[in-house]
Amino acid sequence: MRSSDSPIVIGVDLGGTSVKAGLVSPSGEILYQNKFPSYAEKNPNEVIRQIQVSVQDALKHANGAKVVGVGIGAPGVVDDQGVVKAPPNFVDWDEVPLKGELTKLFSGLPVGIENDANAAAIAESKFGAGKEFPNFLFVIWGTGVGGGIILDHKIFRGPTGGAGEIGHISIDHQGPACNCGSRGCVEAYVGQKYLSVRTAERLKANPESKIWRLVGGDAAKIEPSFISQAAHDGDPIARAILLEAGELLGTALAGVMNVMDLRVSIIGGGLSAAGDFVITAVQDSIVRHVLKPLRKEIRVLPAQLGNNAGILGAAGLVL
Amino acid sequence: MRSSDSPIVIGVDLGGTSVKAGLVSPSGEILYQNKFPSYAEKNPNEVIRQIQVSVQDALKHANGAKVVGVGIGAPGVVDDQGVVKAPPNFVDWDEVPLKGELTKLFSGLPVGIENDANAAAIAESKFGAGKEFPNFLFVIWGTGVGGGIILDHKIFRGPTGGAGEIGHISIDHQGPACNCGSRGCVEAYVGQKYLSVRTAERLKANPESKIWRLVGGDAAKIEPSFISQAAHDGDPIARAILLEAGELLGTALAGVMNVMDLRVSIIGGGLSAAGDFVITAVQDSIVRHVLKPLRKEIRVLPAQLGNNAGILGAAGLVL
Repeated sequence: MRSSDSPIVIGVDLGGTSVKAGLVSPSGEILYQNKFPSYAEKNPNEVIRQIQVSVQDALKHANGAKVVGVGIGAPGVVDDQGVVKAPPNFVDWDEVPLKGELTKLFSGLPVGIENDANAAAIAESKFGAGKEFPNFLFVIWGTGVGGGIILDHKIFRGPTGGAGEIGHISIDHQGPACNCGSRGCVEAYVGQKYLSVRTAERLKANPESKIWRLVGGDAAKIEPSFISQAAHDGDPIARAILLEAGELLGTALAGVMNVMDLRVSIIGGGLSAAGDFVITAVQDSIVRHVLKPLRKEIRVLPAQLGNNAGILGAAGLVL
Repeated sequence: MRSSDSPIVIGVDLGGTSVKAGLVSPSGEILYQNKFPSYAEKNPNEVIRQIQVSVQDALKHANGAKVVGVGIGAPGVVDDQGVVKAPPNFVDWDEVPLKGELTKLFSGLPVGIENDANAAAIAESKFGAGKEFPNFLFVIWGTGVGGGIILDHKIFRGPTGGAGEIGHISIDHQGPACNCGSRGCVEAYVGQKYLSVRTAERLKANPESKIWRLVGGDAAKIEPSFISQAAHDGDPIARAILLEAGELLGTALAGVMNVMDLRVSIIGGGLSAAGDFVITAVQDSIVRHVLKPLRKEIRVLPAQLGNNAGILGAAGLVL
């Protein structure tokens, strides 16, 4: 790694499987990154130890550059005091004052902490597709549907840090049950698992779809990457499924645009890679569903930072 | 009117039919109020003249008290420069720089201007049901469904002043057409006109409902006040209609609570007067539809200021 006089920061992306730490320059260049198991299945102390291991490894590679802070993106709700609450897939983790614990460990270095979806939104705002937009909704469309809201170039956390839960807007009050307890949540239509199940249903009547070949005839193996691949190969069923998903997601996003007076959505997560036509489908749907004064200004863009958004957004907390 | 040494302000409530101005004390007491026709069917100059007439009348009644500002609540979108855009029912009114015009007319007095729903939200925040809540969603449930969002005791206007349009959240992507161009908007279920039409439909099969007697057998006369009165008189059809409306409104509000991390809704407008059981129905619905971490803290309260919210909220802009 190059040495440099300009100060750098460490961005940490904490996930249920791995913890990644990166050395990030003020312009958003990742100068080095690593990856360690997060041991989320053990207990909070083990997880904290792994964060420490990854940060210390990154520090070793700083090569004389001055490290001026550590930012962490973590799953779950992160409150104003840096307490991380109930991250999914983390065992024995009810409420952990992660900011406090890490501040003790990295004595002297300022520590920033934020929910992972919010961190990714910050990354797109500072370094990615959102650079030119002071206000936008960042959408993570993957296993679930989540988001982060950028207002005036800053993250909108809401009163307790829980803002951005766009996946649980109901688009059909009599729709399918969502595992949140409500009905017809947009996540229950377009989240990865639900979309796969709905696709399997639909394929029963369409034995000619290319999706079948991609999953070797096993409906249980259907997942969005295959739907996306089949769509790219011109499979009409796959395209129809993704277009419909874009239409449904757009219906929910239009409600958010209306309520918060927003015009721009930036879409990341696995499903956003399905191709331009999905992004266009979301945009067309928002335009059709949003109030008239907003219509002409609606823009939907794919996220630019992919898997690096976690590290970059975490770094953005202390840059 | 009593004379006083403490400074007072003038709050102006501009509507499609009338313009009302009131003298308001710092504690939210309306010391005097008037009412003039707004002449919205003429043109912006006539409307501005009527605002001037009402303000001058109020000033005459100030009785020696020092008037330190004029606040206006106006329909339509109000941008950051105080330009009022496309207020419904105002003829020849595309974009009018109302703040600028009134500042010239009331030389020396600071002028504040805000959208009427936002003004009512401010009123409930400063003087009404929202006093003890730093963050809440104010809902106007009447002819349409509108709202204002209070964050940290201040109005949240969004990037261009259009925030709070909660009536056009779709609760059924395949639902009835709304006159905004979308489908299944909550306003298209529970707004006054739509609710009346749906009630008329439902009454066909229920000739015994007390609503019939209240409207003299004329379905065209059905409006929420009669549904509400019949519900108070124990009519089961009327109660079922209002409870269902509360359920549907709550479904949409739950989405807003999730996205913005809010817990409290304050409900004003004509429909909110339908009785405690409607408010309870909205609350129960939000609790059923909102994400788990919010559930225990959900509270729905009726607005306290009724028709005075307009004047008081406008006054609150300059207090």
